[in-house]
Amino acid sequence: MPVSPIKMADAIRVLSMDAVHKAKSGHQGMPMGMADVATVLWGKFLKFDASKPDWADRDRFVLSAGHGSMLLYSLLHLTGFKAMTMKEIENFRQWGALTPGHPEVHHTPGVETTTGPLGQGLATAVGMAMAEAHLAARYGSDLVDHRTWVIAGDGCLMEGVSHEAISIAGRLKLSKLTVLFDDNNTTIDGVATIAETGDQVARFKAAGWAVKVVDGHDHGKIAAALRWATKQDRPTMIACKTLISKGAGPKEGDPHSHGYTLFDNEIAASRVAMGWDAAPFTVPDDIAKAWKSVGRRGAKVRKAWEAKLAASPKGADFTRAMKGELPANAFEALDAHIAKALETKPVNATRVHSGSALEHLIPAIPEMIGGSADLTGSNNTLVKGMGAFDAPGYEGRYVHYGVREFGMAAAMNGMALHGGIIPYSGTFLAFADYSRAAIRLGALMEARVVHVMTHDSIGLGEDGPTHQPVEHVASLRAIPNLLVFRPADAVEAAECWKAALQHQRTPSVMTLSRQKTPHVRTQGGDLSAKGAYELLAAEGGEAQVTIFASGTEVGVAVAARDILQAKGKPTRVVSTPCWELFDQQPAAYQAAVIGKAPVRVAVEAGVKMGWERFIGENGKFIGMKGFGASAPFERLYKEFGITAEAVAEAALA
Amino acid sequence: MPVSPIKMADAIRVLSMDAVHKAKSGHQGMPMGMADVATVLWGKFLKFDASKPDWADRDRFVLSAGHGSMLLYSLLHLTGFKAMTMKEIENFRQWGALTPGHPEVHHTPGVETTTGPLGQGLATAVGMAMAEAHLAARYGSDLVDHRTWVIAGDGCLMEGVSHEAISIAGRLKLSKLTVLFDDNNTTIDGVATIAETGDQVARFKAAGWAVKVVDGHDHGKIAAALRWATKQDRPTMIACKTLISKGAGPKEGDPHSHGYTLFDNEIAASRVAMGWDAAPFTVPDDIAKAWKSVGRRGAKVRKAWEAKLAASPKGADFTRAMKGELPANAFEALDAHIAKALETKPVNATRVHSGSALEHLIPAIPEMIGGSADLTGSNNTLVKGMGAFDAPGYEGRYVHYGVREFGMAAAMNGMALHGGIIPYSGTFLAFADYSRAAIRLGALMEARVVHVMTHDSIGLGEDGPTHQPVEHVASLRAIPNLLVFRPADAVEAAECWKAALQHQRTPSVMTLSRQKTPHVRTQGGDLSAKGAYELLAAEGGEAQVTIFASGTEVGVAVAARDILQAKGKPTRVVSTPCWELFDQQPAAYQAAVIGKAPVRVAVEAGVKMGWERFIGENGKFIGMKGFGASAPFERLYKEFGITAEAVAEAALA
Repeated sequence: MPVSPIKMADAIRVLSMDAVHKAKSGHQGMPMGMADVATVLWGKFLKFDASKPDWADRDRFVLSAGHGSMLLYSLLHLTGFKAMTMKEIENFRQWGALTPGHPEVHHTPGVETTTGPLGQGLATAVGMAMAEAHLAARYGSDLVDHRTWVIAGDGCLMEGVSHEAISIAGRLKLSKLTVLFDDNNTTIDGVATIAETGDQVARFKAAGWAVKVVDGHDHGKIAAALRWATKQDRPTMIACKTLISKGAGPKEGDPHSHGYTLFDNEIAASRVAMGWDAAPFTVPDDIAKAWKSVGRRGAKVRKAWEAKLAASPKGADFTRAMKGELPANAFEALDAHIAKALETKPVNATRVHSGSALEHLIPAIPEMIGGSADLTGSNNTLVKGMGAFDAPGYEGRYVHYGVREFGMAAAMNGMALHGGIIPYSGTFLAFADYSRAAIRLGALMEARVVHVMTHDSIGLGEDGPTHQPVEHVASLRAIPNLLVFRPADAVEAAECWKAALQHQRTPSVMTLSRQKTPHVRTQGGDLSAKGAYELLAAEGGEAQVTIFASGTEVGVAVAARDILQAKGKPTRVVSTPCWELFDQQPAAYQAAVIGKAPVRVAVEAGVKMGWERFIGENGKFIGMKGFGASAPFERLYKEFGITAEAVAEAALA
Repeated sequence: MPVSPIKMADAIRVLSMDAVHKAKSGHQGMPMGMADVATVLWGKFLKFDASKPDWADRDRFVLSAGHGSMLLYSLLHLTGFKAMTMKEIENFRQWGALTPGHPEVHHTPGVETTTGPLGQGLATAVGMAMAEAHLAARYGSDLVDHRTWVIAGDGCLMEGVSHEAISIAGRLKLSKLTVLFDDNNTTIDGVATIAETGDQVARFKAAGWAVKVVDGHDHGKIAAALRWATKQDRPTMIACKTLISKGAGPKEGDPHSHGYTLFDNEIAASRVAMGWDAAPFTVPDDIAKAWKSVGRRGAKVRKAWEAKLAASPKGADFTRAMKGELPANAFEALDAHIAKALETKPVNATRVHSGSALEHLIPAIPEMIGGSADLTGSNNTLVKGMGAFDAPGYEGRYVHYGVREFGMAAAMNGMALHGGIIPYSGTFLAFADYSRAAIRLGALMEARVVHVMTHDSIGLGEDGPTHQPVEHVASLRAIPNLLVFRPADAVEAAECWKAALQHQRTPSVMTLSRQKTPHVRTQGGDLSAKGAYELLAAEGGEAQVTIFASGTEVGVAVAARDILQAKGKPTRVVSTPCWELFDQQPAAYQAAVIGKAPVRVAVEAGVKMGWERFIGENGKFIGMKGFGASAPFERLYKEFGITAEAVAEAALA
């Protein structure tokens, strides 16, 4: 007799309940409520093979409501993902386990993205579906043809980023994207209606999605809805009417059963209600067997796909791109461009230099997909011939994200995690605050994405303090595993792009100026890759002053050095395009760059925070102490005292 | 003959066009497109008196699409706001002018909030409407009865925060809030449809708004729509179909006329098209006169209101609250609570101590309005008896914001700017990244709001790295004009609340622990107000070691001191609950607190950035170098090496 799918769902419910109970921490409400939907999805629809978690053409499953992590861990265990042993389930939320509080990509095989910060799983999934659409257009549907499935809760849909994400997906008609909304009317503070009275069905429709409402505990109706979803010409949302903690005896449907709350007697009552006799952390054989066969369901398709890959003329390139390896000669044109810039010494804004670098990278690295949050012309992110990524037109390489910085950054994370794509995008640096949560999550997930952020200081001028970054460079430097670049000229801009692309497990922020800035670089040698280096040595004796600077202020430092040298003070200039890369250099190199000059000054059109690492406790800092103002930029630099004269004076004082 | 309202609108168009042209910077597209709507709104509906920009019961006008600042400056000039002379208009976007690139509150009389970062004006306006609803319930509609009007563009509505804002407003049925959507199908990158295909009308309806579509150049129909808006029982959105740069001759309706783009001959052609003969920066007398009478339209109502205020028994308290002055004896109960805590030395999480402080503040300061982004129980932000702020029930003092950190923070800014309210709210510190753009804007706007942010380190334990702040305290300390508090125990928590409320022009972030931490404080004296202070002196000789710490790590520092003292090393401990307040102390005090001990160590469960200011270049730092992990917190502190033993070892090394 075949095992009832309800029993299979109960296995998820009981594992989730028991693991949370043992950890005395976590959430059983969502896993129990969505167990039926997940059972139908994984049991009948999701294209995967538990023995090959990294099969490139697998469906992507994203648990946007990441606090319900036991749902995913239960599925991974039950379907036979090798690493996910019962011991890992028992060690839920413990040090070193594969079962952390929220799912973490790279940490646990079968987890596609790190979720927990609400709404971002959905927004990341939009990026995955974009990646699929693009790669299918590029490599053909015989190599790329899979879906992205998302489970999202009330909390995900309250977050603003969900609006940006569903707007992007709706406009792009990402028909292989399906959101399963755990419509249980419950959040931590109580029934969701105390904080939510919106109509999610109407809302998704307004964004161009096809929507269905379904009883989330009726397996037949769930299956029909999922089948319907696969046949639409636009993204689909299925509102699954569920009871939170379904099966949890007296706590079923109770908003207070969202998190760890079930008492021993309630656990026992739940077992009785479900007719579940097995001891904690054991699954009856017939149920275990039924689930294991689900895990093997995709093996045949996977093997057939592997044969197609082996036979395809595009197979090798696809495999390379999916591995995240750059094409051979990826930097040939860029290196030539650098050599030329060393000769021609072009003077321009660093955003323009970044655009020039992109002109040499885009043709050489086909997996680069650009875009901007409605500031294309200002961000210099578009290279001729990229074509718009659109519906139809998924082969295009440039995304018009609209004014959606957060959704854009999260979508980039999704594309990078999907594989086969190196995304970059543009906005103003001040609006890094809008996308910061996704920048951080990308750093945590080790996603190679490049955030181009122009207009990187008061140098943007007239737009005023709302648009002028002051603390942004410092605050981005504080995020672990994030490379923050601030190039000084054409050579550094190209070198920084190279370094960003070469770091396969680290996102980058490219901060760039609106205003023109002098050419400063005198020699080649990929010096930006070291993060900081001596740009100009002292002349006429041992260095008495070292001036440290980044970006547009390197020009100020060079001018200050001229003043000091003229006054008989031998002065060095150190350019610091990327602090994080400097931190990775050998101690001896670091010490040599910092040097022994008795006077150290730093200049950067931002706050001082962090500069002590270069100038010490008693060093001088020329920069910003508060917010900027609206005026032409030359006036602002003068009024805020960021000038060569001020640097020289500080050095002499 | 009365002046045609079209001509009045043309005055706005011409001023905007000429000012942008002179500045060679800025945006004439929106001001010209929305001039008709603005003329009807200001001409017939907006309750205001140009001679009294701070009249408490005025309608609030919010230009969410802040780049269209010339629309607002034109209106302020034309209606006779004294400060807004024609010279200011001519100095658009110049140093020191009242006409910065984007409108700035406190800088320019008549500007209600700083806008420019898209979507936030709308979200701030929701807070203003909430403030109005609450104060009307508290003081009566004879003192408080005004509307909030917002002009928003496509960009504002693409931003995620717009979703959070309209969801909050829809649920709360803020019927005195009206959004005028500049529905011109244009953004910087071109026609809006390249990035937006959503149905804004359906979307607002789904959020519980009443919606109307109107020809944005038909004065009669605009007036009818505004009248309709004033009669709805819910917030209203009017989609105004407009042509960008209406009146700009050949560039009318052209997406590329969004910003500064009109050539001299196009300006001339526009003048011909509008039949406008006057020289730049002059307005024909009859039109100027008609506008001036609009500016005086509200004077009678304003004077009648002033008489009501003078006669009202609640008048004095209303005036006090609107001025932002605290009630007499606001801190009497809190001071007694501090005195008691010094005796009883309660051991608990600092979030619990913060909750205890609130129990003494909420009854004493009726203008405090709390809330949480769906983490009430975790944030300890709710005090019994506050009542839910809801519809109906605007007299309630606690807002269930839902999982909408950004919308919450922006709404708080709006309440503070409206006046009469001191808002605070709660979420996890890690999610400061979601609301950071509003935290910054509040700092720029000098809005007294308190962001309670609990679970402030790896000490939150099992939820793992997505929820564990590592760089957040540092990155918030980088924002100018923001007080970042990290109290160590019950005494410091209460003192920090006091300091936050006493700073009338500065927002605060209260970072608080999930986990219990020892009581450390030995003496009274409001020491947290100084930002950092010597908690424990060295014993048995001159200090050889100073340990600096904040929050939960002060307990670690105290334990490390015990170890070091036992080894014969006289050791001081300095607690640093608020760096920004420390920076404001006299240099001599700062030097004394930092002291002269040869060894300096800092301990904080976050990144090192910024700590050099206390420990110098060669000081030791015990903290985090990367992201956290999921496990019980005691294990995490041990694994990441944040222990008293590690601090003592670092001091001895």
